[in-house]
Amino acid sequence: MIMERLCKEVHDKSPVCVGLDTVPGYLPECLRGLPTAEAVFEFNRAIVDATRDIAGCYKLQIACYEAMGLAGLNAFARTLAYVREGGSVAITDAKRGDISSTAKQYAVAHFTGEFESDLLTVNAYMGEDAVSPYYDFLRQGKGLFVLVKTSNPKSGEFQDLCVDGRPLYETVARHVSDWGRDFIDASGFSAIGAVTGCTYPHEFAGIRASMPHTFFLIPGYGAQGGTGRDIAEFFRDGICGVVNSSRGIICAHRGHTEGADFAEYARKATIAMNGDIMQWLR
Amino acid sequence: MIMERLCKEVHDKSPVCVGLDTVPGYLPECLRGLPTAEAVFEFNRAIVDATRDIAGCYKLQIACYEAMGLAGLNAFARTLAYVREGGSVAITDAKRGDISSTAKQYAVAHFTGEFESDLLTVNAYMGEDAVSPYYDFLRQGKGLFVLVKTSNPKSGEFQDLCVDGRPLYETVARHVSDWGRDFIDASGFSAIGAVTGCTYPHEFAGIRASMPHTFFLIPGYGAQGGTGRDIAEFFRDGICGVVNSSRGIICAHRGHTEGADFAEYARKATIAMNGDIMQWLR
Repeated sequence: MIMERLCKEVHDKSPVCVGLDTVPGYLPECLRGLPTAEAVFEFNRAIVDATRDIAGCYKLQIACYEAMGLAGLNAFARTLAYVREGGSVAITDAKRGDISSTAKQYAVAHFTGEFESDLLTVNAYMGEDAVSPYYDFLRQGKGLFVLVKTSNPKSGEFQDLCVDGRPLYETVARHVSDWGRDFIDASGFSAIGAVTGCTYPHEFAGIRASMPHTFFLIPGYGAQGGTGRDIAEFFRDGICGVVNSSRGIICAHRGHTEGADFAEYARKATIAMNGDIMQWLR
Repeated sequence: MIMERLCKEVHDKSPVCVGLDTVPGYLPECLRGLPTAEAVFEFNRAIVDATRDIAGCYKLQIACYEAMGLAGLNAFARTLAYVREGGSVAITDAKRGDISSTAKQYAVAHFTGEFESDLLTVNAYMGEDAVSPYYDFLRQGKGLFVLVKTSNPKSGEFQDLCVDGRPLYETVARHVSDWGRDFIDASGFSAIGAVTGCTYPHEFAGIRASMPHTFFLIPGYGAQGGTGRDIAEFFRDGICGVVNSSRGIICAHRGHTEGADFAEYARKATIAMNGDIMQWLR
């Protein structure tokens, strides 16, 4: 199932999740002659080609593609297909969350058809109704990452509120862990994973204690301030997640090249990030 | 600004928000010869034509269109344009919520270009970072509806948790109201509205007390169980929101006709719903 597959990728390659949050302003000059969506796809393809043997997975932030309209979503669909057809794991970062009948539509949207992905990020403010419509798909090899403690500066505004003497995000963590109990595969991890930002490393121990069978999507590395040392807090008992970097990898060429060698900078950044994480692990 | 415009529409027409949550299974046989996305657009267009003089606004649930892939999103874009070009107010129900840099992309996606809408639903589990990137657009006439207390059966799982002796959704309500203070227009309402389901009418008094300048998007009427009598709890001191019905309106023809007169049933359902709401108001 999906976490077994993702863990194998992480073991064979690295825990680095390459964030393909591509916006036109990131593209080197060598791609600017093409129509925007075509250029975005070619940019993504070159980065995937340059990192496929060293990246644990790829995450696409759908907002970047929505902002380019239908052509952007075409590039999104093509990029997802390119990642998956080459055997890599794709995460769609869409943070969907809605009532049951709507969540069913999102499940169809992101786990079948043109926008088919392997894992989807979900926001559970609306409760299990926003998550349970995906369960049938989890049994067929798909996965989720549910928001628990996010990486942004104001994530504590609601997530840190005190509920029964503990922060709200720990209650969310417990529920997410409970929902995931029926979806644990041979890796020991559930197909329902969680999002916890590495910008809050000290909050992780309380989360992990509630979620022993949870695999994590860890944003916040690099441009948002997270470091390899922060990641060590998460991987204290072994690698239990993937660490996303978007701008740190896909913008690595900026200031260095405007040419076709841009993807080499993404490769170097991926290797450096993996090294930065690994140096802190026992 | 947007709430002034929406209030005028509600006053001149009705507080009914027609939910264009169109999925192929809802279409009458007379439209089934067309390619799916074309049929979906024609269905929506006929319903908009049949209700434009009596509907306060239209809400499109983007999930239904995403589930049809790029062609579905093309129908989504065309429907939004059709609603807006005819002078009606369009709400995109996408419940977006993400870190600042990503929320900026969503703002571009839904307030400019092919998917331009008038108002967007937002999930603020990530705090004000998920909302503030839209502020520049609010100054230019756009609006938001932020989730406070949702209509679904399990909405209480997190939203009702006790924070400082009161349910979490009341804390969210207070924050949303604070964020909206700078965006109050001549209607007395802020461009930052809130979503509160009419399936929880008794929870509304506590919410309203924290949000005197907030206009509400009220889902849950009809198929989800909400009634005109429930809406009376919300409109006790005057009409302060729009009430959405999707299936109750756009599926009203089912079992009655498979022909081109389907939109007349949507019109009748809109009139009946408005009557059901108005009968309880003083």
